Amino acid sequence: MRQRDGMKKTIRPRTKPSDIRRQELMDAAAGLFIEQGVEATTIDAITARAEVAKGTFYHYFSTKNGILEALRAAFSQGFLDRVGAAVDTVPAGDHAARLRQWLVAGVTIYMAEYELHDVVFHQHGRRMQYRTEKNAIVGQLAGLLAAGARDGAWNARNPEFVAVVVYQGFHGAVDDAIERGLQDPAPIAAALFDLFSLMLRT
Amino acid sequence: MRQRDGMKKTIRPRTKPSDIRRQELMDAAAGLFIEQGVEATTIDAITARAEVAKGTFYHYFSTKNGILEALRAAFSQGFLDRVGAAVDTVPAGDHAARLRQWLVAGVTIYMAEYELHDVVFHQHGRRMQYRTEKNAIVGQLAGLLAAGARDGAWNARNPEFVAVVVYQGFHGAVDDAIERGLQDPAPIAAALFDLFSLMLRT
Repeated sequence: MRQRDGMKKTIRPRTKPSDIRRQELMDAAAGLFIEQGVEATTIDAITARAEVAKGTFYHYFSTKNGILEALRAAFSQGFLDRVGAAVDTVPAGDHAARLRQWLVAGVTIYMAEYELHDVVFHQHGRRMQYRTEKNAIVGQLAGLLAAGARDGAWNARNPEFVAVVVYQGFHGAVDDAIERGLQDPAPIAAALFDLFSLMLRT
Repeated sequence: MRQRDGMKKTIRPRTKPSDIRRQELMDAAAGLFIEQGVEATTIDAITARAEVAKGTFYHYFSTKNGILEALRAAFSQGFLDRVGAAVDTVPAGDHAARLRQWLVAGVTIYMAEYELHDVVFHQHGRRMQYRTEKNAIVGQLAGLLAAGARDGAWNARNPEFVAVVVYQGFHGAVDDAIERGLQDPAPIAAALFDLFSLMLRT
């Protein structure tokens, strides 16, 4: 490998560093995946857009799915790095400010890059799927939250927004419990109720 | 249709009511989808398990995807109905108890029926996908929450659990904002921060 790099430098003086070339292939793939979907994108189209020979693709990736996996890992690591950097602009002892930084950076990055997010995490265009079903359940929760707010039982100025957070928190907590192999719903429901009761305190 | 039902009754006295037969087909399909996946399940296998002729399937559904859609609608409606019934066992004015009922019923149903849930909402077996990426981000949040709890900045007895709820709430709120066509991340991050600050208050 070292030998080959040395030869390349002699023969093609304008050869780019390996990591830049890899990134250019990934950028080309990301653009094409967003524009026309993963299915419709060929390796030929990726190398054409990146302006490299087809063999160069196979130097870095073995399949189209391989470059998709690399994009997924890069999205996740980039999110972590940037959110972590935003948190670290605030002193370690100012915990509330650090949580705020996490949320501001996280929301900003996700909203700015959701097209790439959807391509790498939802290959089958899941974003708009099952919206009716989800909205029905969030609507049920929002009605419950609005009724309590009207009676002064708790504080929920925007019941629709709170319902989204409660619904997703519920969904994620159960997903996590299933992944951990937990069997008893009672402690999970109790922990959720405690958290959401605090969130709704007047 | 009425005519045909009448004829059926004469010729085959043991014919089951239409909605029961439809439900039996759906139960057979649900079992097969869970056991061997949607892809591997044929309409022949569904009708064999339901013990009906193949033509009976096409009386109720036009394709395998059609019965999958019916299962999805039934799952969602069944969840709504049962959670709604649980909520309504408690007086309308006792809002906290109603929220608790929603969470207990919701967690119980989802944990008991997640296999069917996954088949109808995640045809490609999404449950265990991207766990590494998600865990990395939830772990980052959990670290932040644990640090604040150690310093007494807030109350988070189980930072890992709270991190799952915060992560999912964040994710769902942004998904919702994108679906609504909102552009500005600032108010969404601020609303999330307000909610989670309340949740973490000592």
